[in-house]
Amino acid sequence: MSLTDIRYDAVMGRWEPDARGRLLQAAFELYVERGFEETTVAEIAAKARLTERTFFRHFTDKREVLFAGASDLQALLVNLVLNAPAALTPMATVRAAFIEAAAFFGEQPEFARQRQRIILSSTELQERELIKLATLASAMGGALRERGVKEPGASLAAEAGVTAFRIAFDRWANGPTQRELAGVMDDVFIQLRSITSET
Amino acid sequence: MSLTDIRYDAVMGRWEPDARGRLLQAAFELYVERGFEETTVAEIAAKARLTERTFFRHFTDKREVLFAGASDLQALLVNLVLNAPAALTPMATVRAAFIEAAAFFGEQPEFARQRQRIILSSTELQERELIKLATLASAMGGALRERGVKEPGASLAAEAGVTAFRIAFDRWANGPTQRELAGVMDDVFIQLRSITSET
Repeated sequence: MSLTDIRYDAVMGRWEPDARGRLLQAAFELYVERGFEETTVAEIAAKARLTERTFFRHFTDKREVLFAGASDLQALLVNLVLNAPAALTPMATVRAAFIEAAAFFGEQPEFARQRQRIILSSTELQERELIKLATLASAMGGALRERGVKEPGASLAAEAGVTAFRIAFDRWANGPTQRELAGVMDDVFIQLRSITSET
Repeated sequence: MSLTDIRYDAVMGRWEPDARGRLLQAAFELYVERGFEETTVAEIAAKARLTERTFFRHFTDKREVLFAGASDLQALLVNLVLNAPAALTPMATVRAAFIEAAAFFGEQPEFARQRQRIILSSTELQERELIKLATLASAMGGALRERGVKEPGASLAAEAGVTAFRIAFDRWANGPTQRELAGVMDDVFIQLRSITSET
């Protein structure tokens, strides 16, 4: 929760701490209980004891609730790539960034797993996820170019990294709950290296 | 042109050979001349001297005109993966399939380049392209599993292959016109191996 999460809810007539967090939680619960398609913004707001107007101050639509963390994750990963030790190869840079960022999800495994299930339930959400991941790969490719990596190397490393991340995330979200995301990610990066080397 | 392209145009009242081909050509010309957003199905049909009804017998909407080849390409690639020599590694199988399929576009380079420019002009089309490529990767991953490749290897090889294909295709479509797609693709696959091995 940040300071921007504390806003005045004009209609409810009081200060609402962490309105964003309450909306997120209410939306997730409703999406899991009755499905994403069937849930309305009015229902999310009601469950969070807030108004629709407050909802729309935080999110553009009910889909965006599920992608609220995407730009934070992207900023974190780009930052990690830009600030990685100069001696690291492009692929090692990308891999280290993802493993470090695993803590981003690792803190809330149940939340990440729920999100995954909701996304898989809707074609529209899966499409949105693809677009966010393509944007992420493109941003990481740009960060690698800023480090002096040439094309197509920068794009290949960034795209291959995002692929490994996505596959690792799926395995982690659907696998035994005690495994750590960072460990699963490391395994998948090792397998990526091994499978692409055998040509 | 296939037999299914020869259909009776009820409104125009005559047999129309290659209506599909004419609609494709008219649509591409209009998308390049005045932009994808600005072009209507009525205009495409008029330019091809066909009716809108005929258009909708061939394509669900004006967007689909640009993705008409996607399912043929996918069927071809899946087939090539399933029928590759058993001794090939997963990545070599994927690479060989893409290089063989390069002829699919290689025959009509100007068409492929135009298509690329049209897609880049619209966010909606780029999203559609992402979805088609994700479907392709998933189908090729399935074909690898049928060959006995385990997960996550099958998905990693298929996804990495689609990434290399996409990057090679972009470079080819925007590079010197005399280069062959198969050659550009081979280069990118070699760079993929080299970049992922350095971790």
